[in-house]
Amino acid sequence: MMGGSFAWLISEKKPSWNIIGYDALTEHAEKAIEQGFIDEAVALDELVKRSDLIIITIPVNHIVQLLPGIMDKVNDQQVIMDIGSTKEQIVSAIKGHRNRGRFVATHPMWGTEYSGPEHAVKGAFKGRVAVICNAAESDADALALAESIYDMVPMQKVYMEAHEHDIHAAYVSHISHIASYALALTVLEKEREEDKIFQLAGGGFESTVRLAKSNPAMWVPIFMQNKENVLDVLNEHISQLRKFKACLEKENFDYLQELIEGANKIRRIIK
Amino acid sequence: MMGGSFAWLISEKKPSWNIIGYDALTEHAEKAIEQGFIDEAVALDELVKRSDLIIITIPVNHIVQLLPGIMDKVNDQQVIMDIGSTKEQIVSAIKGHRNRGRFVATHPMWGTEYSGPEHAVKGAFKGRVAVICNAAESDADALALAESIYDMVPMQKVYMEAHEHDIHAAYVSHISHIASYALALTVLEKEREEDKIFQLAGGGFESTVRLAKSNPAMWVPIFMQNKENVLDVLNEHISQLRKFKACLEKENFDYLQELIEGANKIRRIIK
Repeated sequence: MMGGSFAWLISEKKPSWNIIGYDALTEHAEKAIEQGFIDEAVALDELVKRSDLIIITIPVNHIVQLLPGIMDKVNDQQVIMDIGSTKEQIVSAIKGHRNRGRFVATHPMWGTEYSGPEHAVKGAFKGRVAVICNAAESDADALALAESIYDMVPMQKVYMEAHEHDIHAAYVSHISHIASYALALTVLEKEREEDKIFQLAGGGFESTVRLAKSNPAMWVPIFMQNKENVLDVLNEHISQLRKFKACLEKENFDYLQELIEGANKIRRIIK
Repeated sequence: MMGGSFAWLISEKKPSWNIIGYDALTEHAEKAIEQGFIDEAVALDELVKRSDLIIITIPVNHIVQLLPGIMDKVNDQQVIMDIGSTKEQIVSAIKGHRNRGRFVATHPMWGTEYSGPEHAVKGAFKGRVAVICNAAESDADALALAESIYDMVPMQKVYMEAHEHDIHAAYVSHISHIASYALALTVLEKEREEDKIFQLAGGGFESTVRLAKSNPAMWVPIFMQNKENVLDVLNEHISQLRKFKACLEKENFDYLQELIEGANKIRRIIK
């Protein structure tokens, strides 16, 4: 989904570029050709050898496993960028690598709850932020090429350290996914009459539970790698929910009003 | 917002009907005329006297307070319907009233996080369900008129008892609002750098936190009236979140995978 969305972007903005792809699943690679967003599917080694720019769009645990080996093989003209939702373990995995400068750690803050090449989106990324981490560790030309990809959309570029990125990502993205997964489980557990959920679910339920459709192959590794920050935010979230519970149990509706007014302040931030 | 959306619907589908409105806030009534979705703003007593059909679109605590008095004043040709998000206390408040048959208890499963006449929506309600409760307690002609309003959209009509409605509403609507309020508070509490939330929040965060903008004047009374059901679902939700917490703390990533696969089953219900 993410790889395909990048391929659509580049094929639209840079029609002269040749886009080759590798996917561990042959049927995904075939689908990518069929859908027309890659010109050719090749083996990983061949892809690494032939590419001027390698964009890695796989789950974060596989990035940590594969990235050092890929970086062993590139020359000082090639550029590698990842788009993983965590950054600290990825940047640590290649710290001090002789080709460190050829790598740019990025995270475009855009996604959907769907996976697979059939869900690649034309016109993705628009209006969102692209985070670029530890930019000082990348060579100037490598950084400039990665930046130029986001400038094509365009996306707003924000620079921060990987450690700082992972804290913010826990707040604004990872906790939303856990809340949504837990809400889906709650409703599936309590509401045995699934036809009633289906009939009655209004737009509100759909939007809060949308992220619960997200793929575990992507999200388990994100939560693993960002465990400490996610736990910190999750503990706070449970304690906020306990306040609502206490208000209801004690019929303290003034405090409930206060809590909701506090939550309404999110309007300042999310229009 | 809801009253205006009904007025837009009726003015589009029944241009010959005269639409009069009452709002406790004079400026809201004036705004409704200015926006063109009511023909005239009148006092409540005059509205009750002159209306063939009265649609009550106020917070559920005010419905319980005002409904008996309004029902005292109607004749056996007039029809009253409410659209509140809870049904049991409303139906109980007028149980045995001599004009009970003139009232139809309904809940269209559609809304937005915004309040006030300026947020009324043209083309609202489409593709959603309208719940009609305790239909056997309404006179046949009153029921038929209320049904005809939802048939104008059209909405799918679903019939159930008020008690049953309130249980399902806790699952598919009320808990989503609490989860979203608590998520907003969590992020506002933990993430002191509001500019970072603003910059980094992707679509995922926006959709899970959207409902947190909802008005406490509407939602505190809903939670009050549906306290038992909401508490029941909220306890389950907290216990689901604790499972995620335990997985992270114990690094039990197989169980985390299982939890997420369970949550993914919501795909069966929400496309």
